[in-house]
Amino acid sequence: MAVQTVASVGAPAGAPASSPSSDTSADTSAASGVDLGSAAALSCRECGHRVALGPVFACEECFGPLEVAYELPAGDPEALRARIEAGPRSIWRYAPLLPVPADVADKPNLDPGFTRLIRADRLGAELGVRPGRLFVKDDSGNPTHSFKDRVVAIAVEAARAFGFTTLSCSSTGNLAGAVGAAAARAGLRSCVFIPHDLEQGKILMAAVYGGSVVGIEGTYDDVNRFCSELIGDPVGEGWGFTNVNLRPYYAEGSKTLAYEICEQLGWRLPDNLVIPVASGSQLTKIDKGLRELIALGLVEDRPYRIFGAQAQGCSPVSRAYKDGHEVVRPVRPDTIAKSLAIGNPADGPYVLDIARRTGGAVEDVDDAAVVEAIKQLARTEGVFAETAGGVTFGVLARLVADGRISPDETTVAINTGDGLKTLDAVAPTTGLAATIKPSLDAFRAAGLV
Amino acid sequence: MAVQTVASVGAPAGAPASSPSSDTSADTSAASGVDLGSAAALSCRECGHRVALGPVFACEECFGPLEVAYELPAGDPEALRARIEAGPRSIWRYAPLLPVPADVADKPNLDPGFTRLIRADRLGAELGVRPGRLFVKDDSGNPTHSFKDRVVAIAVEAARAFGFTTLSCSSTGNLAGAVGAAAARAGLRSCVFIPHDLEQGKILMAAVYGGSVVGIEGTYDDVNRFCSELIGDPVGEGWGFTNVNLRPYYAEGSKTLAYEICEQLGWRLPDNLVIPVASGSQLTKIDKGLRELIALGLVEDRPYRIFGAQAQGCSPVSRAYKDGHEVVRPVRPDTIAKSLAIGNPADGPYVLDIARRTGGAVEDVDDAAVVEAIKQLARTEGVFAETAGGVTFGVLARLVADGRISPDETTVAINTGDGLKTLDAVAPTTGLAATIKPSLDAFRAAGLV
Ligand SMILES: [Zn+2]
Ligand SMILES: [Zn+2]
Repeated sequence: MAVQTVASVGAPAGAPASSPSSDTSADTSAASGVDLGSAAALSCRECGHRVALGPVFACEECFGPLEVAYELPAGDPEALRARIEAGPRSIWRYAPLLPVPADVADKPNLDPGFTRLIRADRLGAELGVRPGRLFVKDDSGNPTHSFKDRVVAIAVEAARAFGFTTLSCSSTGNLAGAVGAAAARAGLRSCVFIPHDLEQGKILMAAVYGGSVVGIEGTYDDVNRFCSELIGDPVGEGWGFTNVNLRPYYAEGSKTLAYEICEQLGWRLPDNLVIPVASGSQLTKIDKGLRELIALGLVEDRPYRIFGAQAQGCSPVSRAYKDGHEVVRPVRPDTIAKSLAIGNPADGPYVLDIARRTGGAVEDVDDAAVVEAIKQLARTEGVFAETAGGVTFGVLARLVADGRISPDETTVAINTGDGLKTLDAVAPTTGLAATIKPSLDAFRAAGLV
Repeated sequence: MAVQTVASVGAPAGAPASSPSSDTSADTSAASGVDLGSAAALSCRECGHRVALGPVFACEECFGPLEVAYELPAGDPEALRARIEAGPRSIWRYAPLLPVPADVADKPNLDPGFTRLIRADRLGAELGVRPGRLFVKDDSGNPTHSFKDRVVAIAVEAARAFGFTTLSCSSTGNLAGAVGAAAARAGLRSCVFIPHDLEQGKILMAAVYGGSVVGIEGTYDDVNRFCSELIGDPVGEGWGFTNVNLRPYYAEGSKTLAYEICEQLGWRLPDNLVIPVASGSQLTKIDKGLRELIALGLVEDRPYRIFGAQAQGCSPVSRAYKDGHEVVRPVRPDTIAKSLAIGNPADGPYVLDIARRTGGAVEDVDDAAVVEAIKQLARTEGVFAETAGGVTFGVLARLVADGRISPDETTVAINTGDGLKTLDAVAPTTGLAATIKPSLDAFRAAGLV
C-alpha cells in the first residue's frame, strides 16, 4: 500500500516536519519489529524528537510527552471512506488510522465505539439552538459505559505488541473497570491500583472482572507515584500501565471520537465541539483526529471551534484561558465531577492552544449547574449522563446563552459516561413524585394529574 | 408493495389460518385508520379471533392474549436482506417486520438494539464448548442498559398511533427507567408506578428523566391491580401502559433479538438459544421472530432448540417442564434475580410448548450458581451481567455439563441487562485483593505477584 507521511499532523505548530531523521532505526516500525499498523514511531510533542515504538512516554531529549506518529494511508479519499464504512461497527473501522495491527478486529477485545450520535432537538429548543443543529455524542453506550473503553482498547493492542502479560493502571474508578473488563476479554492478567477508600460500588465494578484491585492507603497522587515506582522495579516487569508507559498509545483512542462524529454527520466537520477537560488528553486527541481527517481528504477543510468544559471546583485550564495565560497553575480539586478532578492537567497548555487557535474557549460551571444540566439532558433527550457529562452540557448551555455558540451552527457535545456511575449527584434533588395507597382517590388527591 | 400474509406465524398450532374473516372491519389497518406498518390486526393466541389494531390486550371471545398479526413483505429474500442491512444500526432496520410506521427512524426515540453479539471462546473453553460455537448477545448495550428499551420503543410508536400523551407502566425498576427515558426522548409525559419501598438507586434511575414516579404502598401485585383500575377510569384517559393496554405491541419488541442474532451470525439460525424466563414473553416472541425469518426465506429452515432459564427461587415454568405438566402452578418468588421474579408467568404455557416443540428444555439454578455465573462471564469475557444474565449463564453451564447442549453446536445465550443495576448480588464475594501502603515492599508482601 502506498503511504503518505502526515505525521506532522500530530506535531505542534513550528515543530520540524517529519522528514526521515538520521536516526533511521527509530523511524520505521519494521525496524523495531513491532506491528502497530500505520504507527511509525513515537514523536515528542515539544521538540519533534523521534524514537522507535515502545513502552515509553517521555522524550529523552526534553522530557516532553511522546505521541504516536503515523504513515497514514494515502490515495483516494472515496476509497478510504468506503473501506471504513464497510468495516466493523466499532472503533476498529478506523484501524488504518490507529496504532493497532491490521487484524485487530479478529482478536478478542471489547470492540468499543461507534456509539450513538443523537439529534437533540428538544434540548436544542430549551437552549435556543435551531432544530437539527445540536447533537449529543453518547459514549455511555460503550461496553463499560464510559469513553475509557476506547483508550483502553488501544492500550491492550500495545500491551500485546510489547509482550506485556499484565494490564495495570492507577485510577479513581472508571478506568479500573475499563481495564479489568478489557484485560478479562483479552485473556491478560490485570492488577489495578486505586485509593483504598473509594466507594464500594466503584470497587465492585472493577473487581468483578476477576483481576486484582489493590487499595492504596493514600490519595490518588500517592497511587500514581506508587505506579511509577512499580514500572522501574522487577516486580513490574511485563506490566503495561495504560495511563503511564502505554500512555502514548492509550491516548490515541480518543481520536476515534472525532472520526465517528464526522462520519455520523455524513463526513462533515461540525462547527463546534464541546468536550470535557480532565488531563486535557481527550480534547487534544480529538483535535488531532479532526486534522487527520482533513489531511486525508475525508472531510472538507473548513474551520471548526473546540470548546473545553471544566467544573468550577477544578478549573485550572478555564482559569488560565480567561486570564490569558499559556501555563496552567495547579489547583486542589473540589467538585462532584470526580472523573474530571485533575488539579494539574498534563495537556492543559495544549488545550489552551487548541481553544485559542480554533476560536473556541475553555469555560466552567459550578456543581449546581452540573446537576441541572444532567437533569435537563435526561428530561429532554432520555440520556442520563455522569457528572462529567453534566459539566459539558452545563458549559454548552452557557456558551449558547452567551452567544459564543450560534443557534444556526452545528454543535456536538460529548457525554463521556453514564449517570448510573454517579447517582449521588442527582440523589438530593430526584425522587418519588408521591407515595400513595393503591386507590384512585389517593392518586387524584396527590395532584399529579 | 406486494404483501404476503404470514400472520399464521403468530398463531398456535391448530389455530385457524389467517384467511380474511367475515368481520372485514377488523382485518386491515387501513380500516382502523392506524398506521403501524405491516401490522394488520390483533389476533387471539388461543382462538384466533381477530380485532382491529387498538389499545386492547385480551380477546373478547375467550380472554386469551392478543398478539400482532402481520401482512409481511413478500418477494425476494435477498432484496429484503439488503434493505435490512442498509438500514439504521438499531431495531429500526427491521421496521418492515414490526408494528411501527415506515418512517419510525425519523422520529425522536432511543433507537435501541443492534447490540453486540460476542464470540465467547474463553467462556466456551471453561464450559467445554468448541471455539467459535458460543456467543453472548449482550443487551446491556441498550440506551438504559436492558432489553426493556426494545419493547418500550415499540410501545412508544403504538402510543403515538393511538394518540396517547402519557406513557405509563407498573414496574419493579428496570421498566420504569426505560419508560421514563423513552418518553422523555419522544416528548411524551410519563407517569410510572412502583412499590414505594424500592431501592433508592432504582428510583433515581427512573425519576431522573423528569416524569412522575409514584410509589404505591403495597406489593408489585398491588401496583399492577391499581394500574388496571386506572385504565378504566377517566383519570387514565390518554394513557398508554406499556405492559397492559399496549402489551401486544410492546411484546413484539423482543422479536428483534431473534432478527439480530440471526443477522449477526450471517443470516443463520443458531442450534441453541438460552433465554431467561420471567413472564415468558421474551422467549415466546424470539421463537416467533425465528419462525418469521424462516417464513420469509431470510434464513434456512432447519431445526433450532430453545432453552428457558429460571432462578430456582422462582421456577414455576421449569417445575412444570420437569413434571411434564402443561399448566404452570404459581409460586411465591424468593431469589436475587428480581427482574425474573414473576411467580405467575402469563406466557408460561407457551414457553413449555416451545421448549418441547423445539427439543429444548426449561432449567433452573440456585442463587449461588447465579452469582458464580455472573463472575465467570465477567472474568472470561469482560461482560458484567445483571442477575437475570447470571440465571441464563448458570443454566447454560448446566446444560453443557449435562450434555443437553453439545460442544459442537452453535449456541447463543442472552444477557438481558447490566450488572451495574444489581451490584448487591456480587458485593458479598467481590472486593479489594489487598489494601496496602504505597510501597514496593508492602506490595511484595501482599503476595499478589
Ligand atoms: Zn522532546
Ligand atoms: Zn380468543
